[in-house]
Amino acid sequence: MVHVLLQVGADDTATLDKIIDSLTSLANAHGDPNARREIELSLKIGKVNECGTDDSMAKEGSKVLILGAGRVCRPAAEFLASYSNIFSSSAYDHDIDQIHVIVASLYQKDAEETIDGIRNATAAQLDVADIKNLSNLVSQVEVVVSLLPASFHAAIARVCIEMKKHLVTASYVDESMSKLEQSAEGAGVTILCEMGLDPGIDHMMSMKMIDEAHSRKGKIKSFTSFCGGLPSPASANNPLAYKFSWSPAGAIRAGRNPAVYKFHGEIIHVDGDKLYESAKRLRLPELPAFALEHLPNRNSLMYGDLYGISKEASTVYRATLRFSEIMATFAKIGFFDAASHPLLQQTTRPTYRDFLVELFNACNISTTARKEYSEVSGGQDGELISRLLSFGHCKDKEIAAKTVKTIKFLGLYEETQIPENCSSAFDVICQRMEQRMAYIHNEQDMVLLHHEVEVEYPDGRPTEKHQATLLEFGKVENGRPTTAMALTVGIPAAIGALLLLQNKIQKKGVIRPLEPEIYIPALEILESSGIKLAERVET
Amino acid sequence: MVHVLLQVGADDTATLDKIIDSLTSLANAHGDPNARREIELSLKIGKVNECGTDDSMAKEGSKVLILGAGRVCRPAAEFLASYSNIFSSSAYDHDIDQIHVIVASLYQKDAEETIDGIRNATAAQLDVADIKNLSNLVSQVEVVVSLLPASFHAAIARVCIEMKKHLVTASYVDESMSKLEQSAEGAGVTILCEMGLDPGIDHMMSMKMIDEAHSRKGKIKSFTSFCGGLPSPASANNPLAYKFSWSPAGAIRAGRNPAVYKFHGEIIHVDGDKLYESAKRLRLPELPAFALEHLPNRNSLMYGDLYGISKEASTVYRATLRFSEIMATFAKIGFFDAASHPLLQQTTRPTYRDFLVELFNACNISTTARKEYSEVSGGQDGELISRLLSFGHCKDKEIAAKTVKTIKFLGLYEETQIPENCSSAFDVICQRMEQRMAYIHNEQDMVLLHHEVEVEYPDGRPTEKHQATLLEFGKVENGRPTTAMALTVGIPAAIGALLLLQNKIQKKGVIRPLEPEIYIPALEILESSGIKLAERVET
Repeated sequence: MVHVLLQVGADDTATLDKIIDSLTSLANAHGDPNARREIELSLKIGKVNECGTDDSMAKEGSKVLILGAGRVCRPAAEFLASYSNIFSSSAYDHDIDQIHVIVASLYQKDAEETIDGIRNATAAQLDVADIKNLSNLVSQVEVVVSLLPASFHAAIARVCIEMKKHLVTASYVDESMSKLEQSAEGAGVTILCEMGLDPGIDHMMSMKMIDEAHSRKGKIKSFTSFCGGLPSPASANNPLAYKFSWSPAGAIRAGRNPAVYKFHGEIIHVDGDKLYESAKRLRLPELPAFALEHLPNRNSLMYGDLYGISKEASTVYRATLRFSEIMATFAKIGFFDAASHPLLQQTTRPTYRDFLVELFNACNISTTARKEYSEVSGGQDGELISRLLSFGHCKDKEIAAKTVKTIKFLGLYEETQIPENCSSAFDVICQRMEQRMAYIHNEQDMVLLHHEVEVEYPDGRPTEKHQATLLEFGKVENGRPTTAMALTVGIPAAIGALLLLQNKIQKKGVIRPLEPEIYIPALEILESSGIKLAERVET
Repeated sequence: MVHVLLQVGADDTATLDKIIDSLTSLANAHGDPNARREIELSLKIGKVNECGTDDSMAKEGSKVLILGAGRVCRPAAEFLASYSNIFSSSAYDHDIDQIHVIVASLYQKDAEETIDGIRNATAAQLDVADIKNLSNLVSQVEVVVSLLPASFHAAIARVCIEMKKHLVTASYVDESMSKLEQSAEGAGVTILCEMGLDPGIDHMMSMKMIDEAHSRKGKIKSFTSFCGGLPSPASANNPLAYKFSWSPAGAIRAGRNPAVYKFHGEIIHVDGDKLYESAKRLRLPELPAFALEHLPNRNSLMYGDLYGISKEASTVYRATLRFSEIMATFAKIGFFDAASHPLLQQTTRPTYRDFLVELFNACNISTTARKEYSEVSGGQDGELISRLLSFGHCKDKEIAAKTVKTIKFLGLYEETQIPENCSSAFDVICQRMEQRMAYIHNEQDMVLLHHEVEVEYPDGRPTEKHQATLLEFGKVENGRPTTAMALTVGIPAAIGALLLLQNKIQKKGVIRPLEPEIYIPALEILESSGIKLAERVET
């Protein structure tokens, strides 16, 4: 085997691209296609970060590659790059030296901005679809963390398995990832998925509570978990009590996933188009000033199985904390219909009001029903409320009034023209939500995770209710804002990488943080990093 | 007239006291009691603040005396002392130079701590019951701000009237203050009361909305105002969603004041002992993530009169935002009974649990009613819930369950002894609330004020709904915490003093900030100080 290790430095990407191309041709020029795999061409790509030094690249020590330079990346990169300093006097520093982090992004500039001010970090430009370049970067590190969208993970995992490098993601294990189980295990590689907040911290906390109960000979009678990323109450200054930090389409669709859970022994199925309707109000007794709503989060039964409580628990419910009552009404009005709407195909653009009236008119209802509610007074608002009630879109006047407030807040009753890039009702509501429900400067987000586990003891000890709550708010440090979501997703993912670097995770294959070898140290390090779960036991 | 102006400096209060005594005897030695009033003996008392300089005392300029060195004092002192710097480039600096602030407190140390780091401020020791010393301090300044408890204000006002100095307070005008109306007016003195948050900003905002509606020929159909000082949602981490920054007794009693208001044309009277029961849940459409409760705040009708809307408005409702549902149950259990309880007079102290059981046993109910609820399961909690329901203490199981959580949270079901200083049920609950519901380090408070005014137009223009909302959170600056309550009470009071120094308030006598000459500049300066009211109009 010919092992070629070249370190190439260049200040601009164009020059670098040329060098890479030449080297790649050189490597390929070897002629024998079977021999190609024996040449490991390792290119160190990227400008050296100004805070680092040239020799930081060459220096021995652990290296982690983070793919994706979105918001979540920075807390992860910061945690790993400063780990040996922050934790040097703690119990965790026994087998790890300085970690060097490479942050790779499609745009060099994004990667550079992300690592700005972080020592021991390097920025790299990378299109992950370019398997060769990806392999090159992966070959330089011990562990890879992918913070890219979930659809990229399987391809990245295949590269990691080939290069025998561990991978961490904060995304759900999907079908394409499950299929890699055997090859990962065969290669002795750990693909640690669901290592963020939800999924992530929620799993770790669940398993800690469940394993502890089992070790005390208890049975889990009921398991309930709520998790959500929301604006802080002060920033939730709109009728939906929600803000988007990116395109609303994904978040709205997530509220339309079918769900299944077990409640008091009964299996409850919820269709995707009824999910918003199944939302319930919630006030946590220990944090009663938060007005919350929750809706079931996909397949809770699957997690009942993974948590090993399906047989003993009569309630297994995982829920998302999210605005929903008004969204249910919007669903019924037809705003989540992604099909092209005839009115929106015309060059003469309808106004938002025209379009809403058209959606109303499309509702097939009897005149009797209409008449029934024709009495609601209060001008324009009263008229809209009457319509919503007469169509059966809202179960009561309170929700109808809130929906009308939301319609007006979003400008869906305004006499301005709908832009040409909206061709469906779904496009229209997404466009308005993106315009009027985005986080703006200094608005704070929060993350709330709450678990309740009821433990029964066959020997007659009284039933216990165990609770764990995590509440984090976005922070501003040195003028740089970090969202609560970025912190609580990025740090667990980084902790996953750390534990893999430290060889603390023995399990191979495609795994979740359900084992004590992961969740015990991970929850401890989380707490040391300032992300605390408050635990309580009641009888 | 003999005018004696002496400046005496001394480092310790004892020495200062001796000097004052000698000078006072000197003044009194004049012999002729009628002549005494002609001698103005002006003593500058107090250590010069280390941040000030000796000559800051002698320097010409406006002087304000602030009585009371509690939390509210510092934002007021800071505002006034830094006014000329902060606002020097604004529209407000036309007729005011540097303001010097004297902060007087019963304990010199408290006054000194309050002004620590504030330039142009002096600390003074003063027992306001000592009219002579009070008069001496008052004589040195142009305006007095009293932030002492309301019961002190009338005596202070009498001194101010005699010395022809204006006074500002943040307290309600009570009977003893009302009686001073004529003498204040006769002396050309302004006693500006209710110049804090509630009362204070609420009045100013109300009058701004009402006057604006009237100027547009509108009629106020409905006036509703909610105001409360609460823990921030994250700090509201107990079942009552409340925290105390001082003794709970006063706050609990305030929830037992009788109230009267007008709702849809009907006059509603609420007895003091039913006030907590009259509480209602509230979610503001523009801030829907806050779970709130409100209860009527004393006499709303009186403010309907003062605001000049009693004839036109069919709803006049001023409310306090406060935990209440569970408090109503506690009232029924008997926890607000301030009479000596036989069980608590014994040397052998009962436990909290004994005492609760005793209170339960004292409830006179039929066995049938008891039986009706004997089915609620769930161990100890279920038993307590059944009792509360069977006694009729709670209207439903949800509130009963919350009450039981609260009983346990407060330790009212613990088997520890009640201390000897508790001799009534009220003492017991106050002691437990003080122990377990106090703000602790870094816990943030908030202030929420929300006004809604419905305006009708006789000429057929559509009815408008005007809203104004103030939401402030406690802050930490340079490691020093300031509560939202201190900011929103202290700054309006200081603005009152500023407007009086600037001769912008022509009205004399005992007044409230209901006139445009006060509320227009005051609301503008409040906004410049970062305390913003968000205003909205809906049709």
